[in-house]
Amino acid sequence: MKNDEVLAIYLIETPYPVEKAAETMAGEQSTGTFISVPGETPQLKARHGARVVGIEPLDESESPSLPGVYIPRDMDKPVYRRAVVKLSFPLHNFGPSLPNLLSTVAGNLYELREFSGLRLLDLELPEAFAAKYPGPKFGIQGTRRLAGVFDRPLIGTIVKPSIGLPLEEYGPLVRGLAEAGLDFIKDDELCANPPYAPFEQRVNTVMNEIDKAADRTGKKLMYAFNITGDIDEMKRNHDTVLQAGGTCVMVCVNSIGFAAVSHLRGYTELPIHGHRTQWGAMTRSPLLGMSFTAYQKLCRLAGVDHLHTNGLNSKFAESNDSVVRSILDCLKPMFGGYGAMPVLSSAQWAGSAIPTYRETRTLDVIHLAGGGILAHPGGLAEGVRSMQLGWEAAVREIELAKYAETHSELQEAIRVFGDK
Amino acid sequence: MKNDEVLAIYLIETPYPVEKAAETMAGEQSTGTFISVPGETPQLKARHGARVVGIEPLDESESPSLPGVYIPRDMDKPVYRRAVVKLSFPLHNFGPSLPNLLSTVAGNLYELREFSGLRLLDLELPEAFAAKYPGPKFGIQGTRRLAGVFDRPLIGTIVKPSIGLPLEEYGPLVRGLAEAGLDFIKDDELCANPPYAPFEQRVNTVMNEIDKAADRTGKKLMYAFNITGDIDEMKRNHDTVLQAGGTCVMVCVNSIGFAAVSHLRGYTELPIHGHRTQWGAMTRSPLLGMSFTAYQKLCRLAGVDHLHTNGLNSKFAESNDSVVRSILDCLKPMFGGYGAMPVLSSAQWAGSAIPTYRETRTLDVIHLAGGGILAHPGGLAEGVRSMQLGWEAAVREIELAKYAETHSELQEAIRVFGDK
Repeated sequence: MKNDEVLAIYLIETPYPVEKAAETMAGEQSTGTFISVPGETPQLKARHGARVVGIEPLDESESPSLPGVYIPRDMDKPVYRRAVVKLSFPLHNFGPSLPNLLSTVAGNLYELREFSGLRLLDLELPEAFAAKYPGPKFGIQGTRRLAGVFDRPLIGTIVKPSIGLPLEEYGPLVRGLAEAGLDFIKDDELCANPPYAPFEQRVNTVMNEIDKAADRTGKKLMYAFNITGDIDEMKRNHDTVLQAGGTCVMVCVNSIGFAAVSHLRGYTELPIHGHRTQWGAMTRSPLLGMSFTAYQKLCRLAGVDHLHTNGLNSKFAESNDSVVRSILDCLKPMFGGYGAMPVLSSAQWAGSAIPTYRETRTLDVIHLAGGGILAHPGGLAEGVRSMQLGWEAAVREIELAKYAETHSELQEAIRVFGDK
Repeated sequence: MKNDEVLAIYLIETPYPVEKAAETMAGEQSTGTFISVPGETPQLKARHGARVVGIEPLDESESPSLPGVYIPRDMDKPVYRRAVVKLSFPLHNFGPSLPNLLSTVAGNLYELREFSGLRLLDLELPEAFAAKYPGPKFGIQGTRRLAGVFDRPLIGTIVKPSIGLPLEEYGPLVRGLAEAGLDFIKDDELCANPPYAPFEQRVNTVMNEIDKAADRTGKKLMYAFNITGDIDEMKRNHDTVLQAGGTCVMVCVNSIGFAAVSHLRGYTELPIHGHRTQWGAMTRSPLLGMSFTAYQKLCRLAGVDHLHTNGLNSKFAESNDSVVRSILDCLKPMFGGYGAMPVLSSAQWAGSAIPTYRETRTLDVIHLAGGGILAHPGGLAEGVRSMQLGWEAAVREIELAKYAETHSELQEAIRVFGDK
């Protein structure tokens, strides 16, 4: 690709000839309006018009995927044609600006009545974006260094119950998890700075326990404190975490927006754990919104160091194929770097390691189990150990049941969670 | 409603009994996880659990609206039941925080495999939000005062071509529009700070013309400069506009995110013109995402003074009913105030005033016409005048064709745009 263009790839569905529909997209998102106006000269169109650079026709459907499409009176029984369309946008139309990139490649396209489906599949960005947005500050290696875990996934959990745990119960819970050998804890996305457990007190309670456990075990657990909030509040809360000796902050990317994430990237001295809550709204309709392939690039550009991908066999609607693709997407270099650590969660337990490693062949993940650790019948330490054993079995390509024969923590995990 | 709860209203579709599905939503977004964990006590559930406070069954469907729903093996041929569900979330779970409100009322819900459709329809927020978020700084009255227009809609246009207009053509274009008696111009959402027309130079060029025209006409046109960008850049660009004597800044709400809008609200000394580009991705699938009723409340909370709603008979997929509802939504008071001015655009011309006023009975709108003004055969002044005449006819309930008999500007508009 050239250095002066952004390529955007879409899945579309339209009752119009695909070529014409693609031209409408290019016009709408560059020089066009609904009626020719003075000033839209051929020279201006040549310099600033977006161009259709690829069309790959797919199947057809007799009914539209989304409502609102316009059928002219003189059109015969409409057929809804699907295609993958690639557009080239001149970079000088907006410059290397993440918010204005979004306005351009997504923008009003979703509302066009020429389409009964339109989804952004992927983006290819020129180097100018790398110069403006330096990407994850810590990434995979920085995270491993801070967590002190190098040769296997980070094993983590989420504070549960998500909501309502009083401060006097936070301490013992974290103490137990830190002493159990856990690498990582994240706040639930629902819990940031609630009135019943104010942020600063929560941080001090948690870090006090983590430090004490570290004194004993020699290993400091990484805790991702959810600082999601208004911008000044997030910076204050980041400082609170930093001053208390914490090693990670977490934000809900879609709850604050890309400009806020990118601003925090400029400010932070800690890795940013990116939660994608609300992501389903952007992706669950197959012919609308955005694919994770495009989304995770935007997140990495904004500077998240970790990014949620769901885990395999989760309680969510996403297919395992999609989860696997998402994990691999996060690990593909952008601009030769920008690696973000995929975060696997939802209904995970020791056995989840097997299909995850088989499909992805990576250890560069943060593997979160809630119930899968906290509800292990042998207690927290056995819960954590069972997760590590699951990954050992996966890497050594030993059947889980076989490996469990000599590892009771795994045996218990299979007994309790094995049908999940 | 009570002062210690947030009410959220959803449209759902599920193959499970609706009551059970609603309880799943409440659990997922408050105290629950996929397996019972120690600490999720009845007391904690009572204090922090979200509650289902209303269920209104609707129709059923034989096929799911969205893929990914989980059908257990022992379920007979599934029927997809639709319902409106109302949940109550305890405010003390998250406090009056706009980002954390989003994580709570939207959050992971869209990904739950118990649902083949889930859409946030509306929100009712307690007063604590009003105390933290003061809402639009200028609103309708502040905008009218700055624009000097009191007894009719603000008539505006969008700089077209959207992209590529060189600075030496900006001056004459704005001069023409300002001298033609226009009230308002906005930048296109695609044009913020492009390399070919740097922001500061563009502001100075535009404001120079607006000031000169104001000296002659006694009326200063309001220009909404698109400052969409990274946060520090937006503040700098806001200052540039302010120092140059400008009276409005514009942001693409979804391109920057709510936290950034809210941060800008704290900083701005000018009205914030809120563009909703990308909105289609959040709303076009009828059983996914968010309704505008909920969205516009979030935008007003974040502090936008103007908000785009589309216009009637636009080139977009939205129905006229939806546009009318959106306009009325923006005008309904929140916390006794927070009025934001709806911005009507897309394929608008003089005649659009007739159905718009008939359906909404309001003059508190910004009515934007691109081609409908710029391509008027009588030139810019006649284009602007035709829009004013359209509203005169609407308010006086005179048929457009009748009113055109004595107003040639309107006659020309009907001739050229009348079939749009």
